[in-house]
Amino acid sequence: MGEVILDITMSLDGYVAGPNQTLEAPLGERGMELHEWVFPLKSWRSQHGMDGGEESEDDAMVAASLAKVGAQVMGRRMFSGGSGSWENDPNAGGWWGDEPPFHVPVFVVTHHPREAVEFDDGTRFVFVTDGVDAAVEQARAAAGERDVRVAGGADVATQAFRAGLLDRIDLHIAPLLLGGGAKLFADVEPGSLELVAARSSQRATHVTYR
Amino acid sequence: MGEVILDITMSLDGYVAGPNQTLEAPLGERGMELHEWVFPLKSWRSQHGMDGGEESEDDAMVAASLAKVGAQVMGRRMFSGGSGSWENDPNAGGWWGDEPPFHVPVFVVTHHPREAVEFDDGTRFVFVTDGVDAAVEQARAAAGERDVRVAGGADVATQAFRAGLLDRIDLHIAPLLLGGGAKLFADVEPGSLELVAARSSQRATHVTYR
Repeated sequence: MGEVILDITMSLDGYVAGPNQTLEAPLGERGMELHEWVFPLKSWRSQHGMDGGEESEDDAMVAASLAKVGAQVMGRRMFSGGSGSWENDPNAGGWWGDEPPFHVPVFVVTHHPREAVEFDDGTRFVFVTDGVDAAVEQARAAAGERDVRVAGGADVATQAFRAGLLDRIDLHIAPLLLGGGAKLFADVEPGSLELVAARSSQRATHVTYR
Repeated sequence: MGEVILDITMSLDGYVAGPNQTLEAPLGERGMELHEWVFPLKSWRSQHGMDGGEESEDDAMVAASLAKVGAQVMGRRMFSGGSGSWENDPNAGGWWGDEPPFHVPVFVVTHHPREAVEFDDGTRFVFVTDGVDAAVEQARAAAGERDVRVAGGADVATQAFRAGLLDRIDLHIAPLLLGGGAKLFADVEPGSLELVAARSSQRATHVTYR
């Protein structure tokens, strides 16, 4: 069996999205800056259909991680944007448009039942209305020997953590203070994690916990 | 001139003390666990008058850092405990007792004027009633060529950050979720920091920012 891994980028003050999330800016104010470490990487560019890019230690890490992902789990807001409702355009793939970059089944945790949507690249959005644990279970079945990546946002990630569904956390800490927004690990029970490893590039600190 | 360095240990969810700080538990519930990474180290034990201890990479880091510290700045609560008032015992060195481990002048930011208190080991508590910037200025003068270490707690650290008084942040991230308590970097303006380096032992992740 693969592992269930939360792979997420957090600001130094604990946010995975900035304040005032909207459909146009689902990561909130300055939230896109969280992910600046990943955009130049060859593996990320390749996943998004672009040539070239940086072949660094960060790139090797991202490439190795992506290669093992067999399914993803994400929240409704990460799927369709901050205030957005894909109900307005039932054929669209949410905020991700017509060419979503996932290449694997993506289980979207939502209150709105909807038919699955499939794309040529292998992305298939499946809408799960009975909670994060059900989404992770379906993702596990779809992933088989590969990993399930819990991608966010804050609510789904924190719910998965609270429910004990995660085998591992790959946390990327951006050297950024957002001052507010969507807090990761809000209102969790106190407890300790096993620290496996940490490393940084100039752009982010990468920490693995079990 | 030395540098002004915030040297502080934070939980993964952003707290430098747990909930319900009291005189007996100034670090709040489970807050002492933040510092478990430092207690076994030879350099920490030596600073506290104890023999032996671990000579690891963490130890070398702490030893190098302590060797450069010429003065410290701390908040009143870190000095005297969560709900405590040293006014009850004007001869005592606050929560730190009769043998405080600092060996350098310590500038305590407080609203209560008080005569300085001096100890044989070189610790001298000086009480500064006109704010963090005044405390840092006095500490700079006392430290000379050596560094000023801003030690905490959350309020003083965050105030020093907001006021732009810090040259560097040596942040230690403990693999711990406290679920509440004293938040570091609360209500700061959004902004980015320069990430210098990161490394981890099994006990904590150490990240340096400018």
